[in-house]
Amino acid sequence: MDAARVLLAWRGDAYGGWQLQPDVPTVQGAVEHAVSRIMDVERVVVRAAGRLDAGVHAEAQVVAFDVPARRTPQALLRGLNGLLPPDIACLALSPTDASFDPRRRNAGKTYRYRLLNRPVKCPFRAGVSWHVRRRLDIDAMQAAAHALVGLHDFTSFRASGCTAAHPNRRVRSVTVSRVRDEVRVVVDGEAFLRHQVRIMVGCLAEVGLGRRPASWMADVLASRDRSKGARTAPAHGLCLERVHFAPALSWLVGRPPWDSG
Amino acid sequence: MDAARVLLAWRGDAYGGWQLQPDVPTVQGAVEHAVSRIMDVERVVVRAAGRLDAGVHAEAQVVAFDVPARRTPQALLRGLNGLLPPDIACLALSPTDASFDPRRRNAGKTYRYRLLNRPVKCPFRAGVSWHVRRRLDIDAMQAAAHALVGLHDFTSFRASGCTAAHPNRRVRSVTVSRVRDEVRVVVDGEAFLRHQVRIMVGCLAEVGLGRRPASWMADVLASRDRSKGARTAPAHGLCLERVHFAPALSWLVGRPPWDSG
Repeated sequence: MDAARVLLAWRGDAYGGWQLQPDVPTVQGAVEHAVSRIMDVERVVVRAAGRLDAGVHAEAQVVAFDVPARRTPQALLRGLNGLLPPDIACLALSPTDASFDPRRRNAGKTYRYRLLNRPVKCPFRAGVSWHVRRRLDIDAMQAAAHALVGLHDFTSFRASGCTAAHPNRRVRSVTVSRVRDEVRVVVDGEAFLRHQVRIMVGCLAEVGLGRRPASWMADVLASRDRSKGARTAPAHGLCLERVHFAPALSWLVGRPPWDSG
Repeated sequence: MDAARVLLAWRGDAYGGWQLQPDVPTVQGAVEHAVSRIMDVERVVVRAAGRLDAGVHAEAQVVAFDVPARRTPQALLRGLNGLLPPDIACLALSPTDASFDPRRRNAGKTYRYRLLNRPVKCPFRAGVSWHVRRRLDIDAMQAAAHALVGLHDFTSFRASGCTAAHPNRRVRSVTVSRVRDEVRVVVDGEAFLRHQVRIMVGCLAEVGLGRRPASWMADVLASRDRSKGARTAPAHGLCLERVHFAPALSWLVGRPPWDSG
């Protein structure tokens, strides 16, 4: 095999996001270290479907890298999991051609944001959900979310450091649901601006807490002014749930989380 | 209120178990520190329904302590959660009489052991489940578990350092189930020897992997010899799910996890 693509899961607490940075542990750094050790080469560059912020989790990031040494897919999957730390796992793997670039090829992403919505904290979800004590009105949140669906100028939902060429993005769906003591916001879209999902969730929480009416969301969007919206929701509630490809990628060894059981 | 009883949850990774020990962070130590700070006294002794091993988690441990200073239940619950670290939470609280001893008064406990049963590890369950790669046969495990139910001499399922006066314990039920990629063993009993549940799970895993027949479990039990059984399953898969009281305890502020939603 010339190259491999890998479905990667990680818990983001200990990392400064996906992308390599000096003096900060990153997921890319950890994965490149493991891959280059298996190949016994100086460095193998690992390409991802997108960057993720510090502290954000991934259930199924898609990455790819060249395979300069002869390895079977089985040996590569097993070897990577042996070398990666406990908070990063290689879930599935397939051979691919060397030109495969998950960033250019992907047809969108689904993110899930978890809010622990009860008066007291939970030790088991401390690092993977945003704790909001007062009861959220998910019907109001869902009503507000409708304004965000479609192709819009998301300037109001864009972090100051965002380097994107333009602020227009298509959000395909936003779904707000409650599962016991947890509220989940699932956002599906073609591509996202920096902090876009987290700013959306920050605004939805304002509506859910009754501080703003559901109609406020359309006003924030129309204003094209970041200062009109709410605070950015914390990174640790966010998880990259899935990267979409058309046609869908198949996996030779291992299995994606949506096939588990 | 003279005394308070509290429903406590914690993630055990960072602690040497419940009970105070020199030079090791313990949950009792962290809780006593928070309680005595709220009361502004030197030390308040916190009594628990039972010890838990290092690394074991609790979803609903019952503890009690005297309340030497005037505090409302609401203020005490909120204050404790503010002072406790993120991996320990006070879920519910009620006033009680100063003589309430959760260790003497409880009518048994339910433990849950989680096994991640799939070829690859999971970053989100690394510290809360035992990773067993090969497929477990849960029907064989359930058949083997039947031998453990009832009043038995559990010498074969007792750690060497166990200080219990005698090895006879009543196990009320053992239930083995699969939820997607996870196998769960739920054990309910009046009281347990040191490492009893973890040694039971270690033996059940041998049966589930096909290394031993289901009938082997009765042989291990009958042998009254710890060396006949399997290795003790790791602590981090174990969680104290519930402590039983008759009549059931009610909670004035907060709510137990089995009422959440």
